[in-house]
Amino acid sequence: MTHYYEEMDRLKESLLAMASHAESAVARSIRALIERDDPLAEKVITDDTLIDQLEIDIDDIAIHLLAKAPLATDLRMTTVAMKISQNLERVGDSAVTIARRAIELGTEPQLKPYVDIPRMATMSLEMLRDSITAFINREPARARAVVPRDRDVDNINRQLHRELASYMVERPTTITRCLKLMTISKSLERVADHATNIAEEVVYLYEAVDIRHASQKPNEGTRTTG
Amino acid sequence: MTHYYEEMDRLKESLLAMASHAESAVARSIRALIERDDPLAEKVITDDTLIDQLEIDIDDIAIHLLAKAPLATDLRMTTVAMKISQNLERVGDSAVTIARRAIELGTEPQLKPYVDIPRMATMSLEMLRDSITAFINREPARARAVVPRDRDVDNINRQLHRELASYMVERPTTITRCLKLMTISKSLERVADHATNIAEEVVYLYEAVDIRHASQKPNEGTRTTG
Repeated sequence: MTHYYEEMDRLKESLLAMASHAESAVARSIRALIERDDPLAEKVITDDTLIDQLEIDIDDIAIHLLAKAPLATDLRMTTVAMKISQNLERVGDSAVTIARRAIELGTEPQLKPYVDIPRMATMSLEMLRDSITAFINREPARARAVVPRDRDVDNINRQLHRELASYMVERPTTITRCLKLMTISKSLERVADHATNIAEEVVYLYEAVDIRHASQKPNEGTRTTG
Repeated sequence: MTHYYEEMDRLKESLLAMASHAESAVARSIRALIERDDPLAEKVITDDTLIDQLEIDIDDIAIHLLAKAPLATDLRMTTVAMKISQNLERVGDSAVTIARRAIELGTEPQLKPYVDIPRMATMSLEMLRDSITAFINREPARARAVVPRDRDVDNINRQLHRELASYMVERPTTITRCLKLMTISKSLERVADHATNIAEEVVYLYEAVDIRHASQKPNEGTRTTG
């Protein structure tokens, strides 16, 4: 059994590594956008293979652990780890999308200083960090507190979408740039969605209460939608 | 053991039911768009709770099965079922997004007859059906054949995005409608992504070869990206 829990620790360490890579990918993609730093954006894109590989590694450890889980709660812990890893993989994909649009935007003059986008990035990365911390430290209350914050990120995304849409009407020459900014904003909103999915799984894991789909979905809900 | 495999059959039946609901949701959301049928769109939105509930049910059966899996391959089968269900849940969310945009588009004159969107819907739903059939019938070759088709759907989405962007430049009054059509097209592209994710898991399950992330990602790859 000692061996079992050592391997479980290894699973958690891999998840932490994956979360840290995914977080850093999003942070760097936004930095690449703001500082118009193409090499940094390129690096985000190539480094995504690391995150993809971690997903595969985590799956392998998890399957191995499932075969000899001593307790039902260990099973649940392992399947939640697999789900977290799937969400982190998609956070990595969002970073790649942002990095690609940042490179494209770098070829044209900047529309205006970025205010909402860095704010959304900070909010969604904090949500992600909190949900992972809640998983590692067994803190369902911290995970629960992540869920309502998804609404705030949704609201900024929607407001920015509206602003950009009006801007496009006034100045049609900015349309392609506005579309790319909409994609970036939507990608950050997705990072927050993934953080929320993780938080919901963590609450379920430690409180055995399923809060997934419990909230109404007036704005496409708390789960990933799109 | 008989009991175990009976319960495994129940898991597969629930997955089939979920797949059929998700498929029908996408098909009906597109029909609601084309026929400007608001009540049908509303029904897609409210029926999404059924899909959400199936995800929770499948998780419960799966955890139960994991605790007493006789063979390592049974573990893998069960975790793949959980991943498929997570993908189907998101297909349901895509249908809801399409239905919402369909209702909004219903309040304005239609831009032009829809050609690419129904074609993308047909293609992605076929991919979804094939990947689920491959899972149920143990047909890795059928699953393998799904993966390259994702590129075709990506291409139509990208082409439509370009066309709509040009249209917006020419006729700025159509901007909000074009944006909604872009979201619908992107949602269908995501359905194809989820079908591809499922297909990759099925290949892995039956051939024990990990083809996830194996393809190059010139266009955000075959996995869900946003």
